[in-house]
Amino acid sequence: MSVATVILQLICPDRPGLVSELAGWVAANGGNIRHADHHTDAGAGVFLSRIEWELEGFGIPRQALPAAAQALADRLSGQAKLHFSDAWPKVAIFASKQSHCLVDLLWRVQSGELPMQVPLVIANHPDLEALCSGFGVRFVCIPSSRENKPEVERRILGLLEDNQIELAVLAKYMQVLSGEFLARFPDVINIHHSFLPAFKGAQPYQRAWDRGVKLIGATAHYVTEELDDGPIIEQTTVPVGHRDEVADLIRKGRDTERMALARALRLHLRRQVIVYRGRTAVFA
Amino acid sequence: MSVATVILQLICPDRPGLVSELAGWVAANGGNIRHADHHTDAGAGVFLSRIEWELEGFGIPRQALPAAAQALADRLSGQAKLHFSDAWPKVAIFASKQSHCLVDLLWRVQSGELPMQVPLVIANHPDLEALCSGFGVRFVCIPSSRENKPEVERRILGLLEDNQIELAVLAKYMQVLSGEFLARFPDVINIHHSFLPAFKGAQPYQRAWDRGVKLIGATAHYVTEELDDGPIIEQTTVPVGHRDEVADLIRKGRDTERMALARALRLHLRRQVIVYRGRTAVFA
Amino acid sequence: MSVATVILQLICPDRPGLVSELAGWVAANGGNIRHADHHTDAGAGVFLSRIEWELEGFGIPRQALPAAAQALADRLSGQAKLHFSDAWPKVAIFASKQSHCLVDLLWRVQSGELPMQVPLVIANHPDLEALCSGFGVRFVCIPSSRENKPEVERRILGLLEDNQIELAVLAKYMQVLSGEFLARFPDVINIHHSFLPAFKGAQPYQRAWDRGVKLIGATAHYVTEELDDGPIIEQTTVPVGHRDEVADLIRKGRDTERMALARALRLHLRRQVIVYRGRTAVFA
Amino acid sequence: MSVATVILQLICPDRPGLVSELAGWVAANGGNIRHADHHTDAGAGVFLSRIEWELEGFGIPRQALPAAAQALADRLSGQAKLHFSDAWPKVAIFASKQSHCLVDLLWRVQSGELPMQVPLVIANHPDLEALCSGFGVRFVCIPSSRENKPEVERRILGLLEDNQIELAVLAKYMQVLSGEFLARFPDVINIHHSFLPAFKGAQPYQRAWDRGVKLIGATAHYVTEELDDGPIIEQTTVPVGHRDEVADLIRKGRDTERMALARALRLHLRRQVIVYRGRTAVFA
Repeated sequence: MSVATVILQLICPDRPGLVSELAGWVAANGGNIRHADHHTDAGAGVFLSRIEWELEGFGIPRQALPAAAQALADRLSGQAKLHFSDAWPKVAIFASKQSHCLVDLLWRVQSGELPMQVPLVIANHPDLEALCSGFGVRFVCIPSSRENKPEVERRILGLLEDNQIELAVLAKYMQVLSGEFLARFPDVINIHHSFLPAFKGAQPYQRAWDRGVKLIGATAHYVTEELDDGPIIEQTTVPVGHRDEVADLIRKGRDTERMALARALRLHLRRQVIVYRGRTAVFA
Repeated sequence: MSVATVILQLICPDRPGLVSELAGWVAANGGNIRHADHHTDAGAGVFLSRIEWELEGFGIPRQALPAAAQALADRLSGQAKLHFSDAWPKVAIFASKQSHCLVDLLWRVQSGELPMQVPLVIANHPDLEALCSGFGVRFVCIPSSRENKPEVERRILGLLEDNQIELAVLAKYMQVLSGEFLARFPDVINIHHSFLPAFKGAQPYQRAWDRGVKLIGATAHYVTEELDDGPIIEQTTVPVGHRDEVADLIRKGRDTERMALARALRLHLRRQVIVYRGRTAVFA
Repeated sequence: MSVATVILQLICPDRPGLVSELAGWVAANGGNIRHADHHTDAGAGVFLSRIEWELEGFGIPRQALPAAAQALADRLSGQAKLHFSDAWPKVAIFASKQSHCLVDLLWRVQSGELPMQVPLVIANHPDLEALCSGFGVRFVCIPSSRENKPEVERRILGLLEDNQIELAVLAKYMQVLSGEFLARFPDVINIHHSFLPAFKGAQPYQRAWDRGVKLIGATAHYVTEELDDGPIIEQTTVPVGHRDEVADLIRKGRDTERMALARALRLHLRRQVIVYRGRTAVFA
Repeated sequence: MSVATVILQLICPDRPGLVSELAGWVAANGGNIRHADHHTDAGAGVFLSRIEWELEGFGIPRQALPAAAQALADRLSGQAKLHFSDAWPKVAIFASKQSHCLVDLLWRVQSGELPMQVPLVIANHPDLEALCSGFGVRFVCIPSSRENKPEVERRILGLLEDNQIELAVLAKYMQVLSGEFLARFPDVINIHHSFLPAFKGAQPYQRAWDRGVKLIGATAHYVTEELDDGPIIEQTTVPVGHRDEVADLIRKGRDTERMALARALRLHLRRQVIVYRGRTAVFA
């Protein structure tokens, strides 16, 4: 687990020979591939690849690797993302009043399950401050209202920049981020408490109860400007029955929400998710 | 399994003493209760009960039981349904071209899993005739089109009446039954190939693929005039991934569709489902 | 949720009229039944019942109810257990070094999901002290070794008695309790990290990996003197694949362990579990 | 789906450059890779690979490919298996009296889900003859007893040879094949009606009931001489409860058995399973 690796994610137009070209490039530089996974979306004519190899002994020095990967991608008319497994990204967790996802994520970080750093938690209510301090994580409360939303988002963007945050995780933040925000900070994962596309928007558990469904779900997805419509990373469901009231759906939902969010976040952090055309390929 | 039982389903306004009243009535007539299950929907103020007791030795003769149950329900200002476990209802299965649900149901009937008789299969295409004859089941093909729909439904209603059919099961019939049809023959179970309320209507697998979901589902429900909106009996899901094309969703969906339909039908046939206020209580 | 209820669990020899007798007794005393569930194990000739009714307005005063329930059970040659939903039992959680189950349980208690009080956590290692103090729960470390086991168990029994503990939950305690201990304190729930009866005993994940299974599991069960052989309350599984090393099984197992334990504990605390003949009936 | 492909499965000692070497070999011969998946078992030092590319236009002619693959494997000190997706193997299904797995497999073959031919079904009881003839499949009944087992196995081996059978599927055959049989015909898949390694051997459902488990399972595995100990391909589970008698476990088990067997068989037929060191890698 402790061996540092390089992870290359690549998207490019499909054509014969791409696997060989990528693997050959790694091999030519002395890399020992640990994982190589590829997918062709035949309908879209798109080739997706995730290759992970050992950093030690690789012929191209670490600091030169991003440019080398870019050159490779250019040659294939594609886009590349390069990551190092030992460079844990800085992630900000956004929360509101509910603790279940936040405590789950903080515990997973503490136990080493999630390769990330959490410099701060941002919340629009003060309720979860003690929880964060128990885990030794900075807590910033920025109350938001319809009126002050632009100002709140500006302050948040400032915090994200100051702390070199790479990813924001909405752990039941219950606020919609504006298109302007997302244009400046696009890497955001959200957990929605329904099995999307069912019950988009507000109060999904109440609506699920009203409809009399026999399963409820949760969906972890990347955030886009259109509400609850971004690329889906992970979905889970849990059975419910006629004895379950809305409060029971909420309670059962908490477990499935935090599982879906934690799994999605781990997949993202291990660079196993590639987004393309409004959807994801998950190389797990 | 072979002991004949009486099954009483009752819905009435909630008030204290109902369980005692029902169980007392069974006991006073010498009944040995095998299953008793109740539910109160507190919000609606509705009490639901399902009681099953041994027929043999019960003080009220079989032929007098329906009237006695009705009298009991009247006393409680409710509605009762009475069933005998040894009276297997006659069920018509409706199909089209796809065989997966039909072969599954016919096999389950043959193997004794589903306590019902199937006097006939009704289809709007001739494809499944040989399958039915292999199971010794009468097959009636009634091609339907937009123009002849009223005439088709009249013919079907005639068949259902002639064969004393109690329940129709739409095993991928792919036709919408009219409000007039349902007014005359209301007991219909359908299998919809999505996790309702997501992807109501046509081509749910294509739309699921387009949305990039990570789970697909199936929903068995009672049919109402509004499409895919009837009371849900059973829902199932199955994981899908980026390697799955629409054809794979259809293939995987077949398994989850037939499981959901078979489970729902068994629950119905064992009189474990009570419908109220557009939803179901499933006493399983 | 906040209405106080009385819960009666009863086991007795099966005979006709029992449901009526029980429900009649509740009704005769003015009780409004909220849940009534029964089961007959025909092979064993045993009748099991769980009835829950509103405490307020019930004709028998609270302090007289235990004796009344005992008299009822005596009349039926059975055993009764009586509980009040507003009397949250005192539960001791036993832990060792692993935090996942402990943090999960403490969070659920804090969030109100588990109707219990936790006066203390007992551990044989000091690692989890800070976690407990973060939740405001007393932590007692009693290191154990093969030599001092009788002394350790005596000290623990003293603590349980002093704190009026009703139930012990082994949240990855990793120690086997002796028969003497269990004779004096029999109500103990354990989480075992395998799908019992597979992989009883030590290192189940390593052995699961060695065998090449495709699912791993967790089992929450009551503890008996024979290791990993007590009545099972809840079992869960999670898929694993060839890319999962033992460390991955351990990581994935943590999620399924804590879910199984939390569910089992909630079922126990809501008095939905009846143990008989080495097995459980779970009235959920 | 209809494009013919070549599938290469390779096992060899791990070393850097293998992915490049394999993909380079395919590319050098003009192959268009559709799927490439690899796995390194670091503990065992073993590299596993499955590569699938389009047959049309590949530089090495079809009839020369097996030798070319062998030469490649020799160069890597490994073993290779080469398959063509349009060459559907001949598979014999073994059955006894129970129909659920057999009807499921025959239906899946008929519907095109399973890329295989079924020249014959071999059974030790005559019960399923009509079922087979309904699907147009030859049925051979060879009654077996303790005394005539060697003779029965000789006859079966003759049938397998005469019909050029590549794989035998034990669809509830309920007979143990001898080591001699397996030495001569090693490719056999079995479905065992438990979640192995729990409840190896006879009557797993009865023993599962006796133990009071809350989940039952099924395991599809390759057959080895030691009973129920071969490499596992697929496992499934289904919840059971206290209301389920042994007959219910058997009924519920039928669904999970046939699903596990069908999934395992499809994985095998699509050459997604590689066996090594008593376990499987499943490239799905």
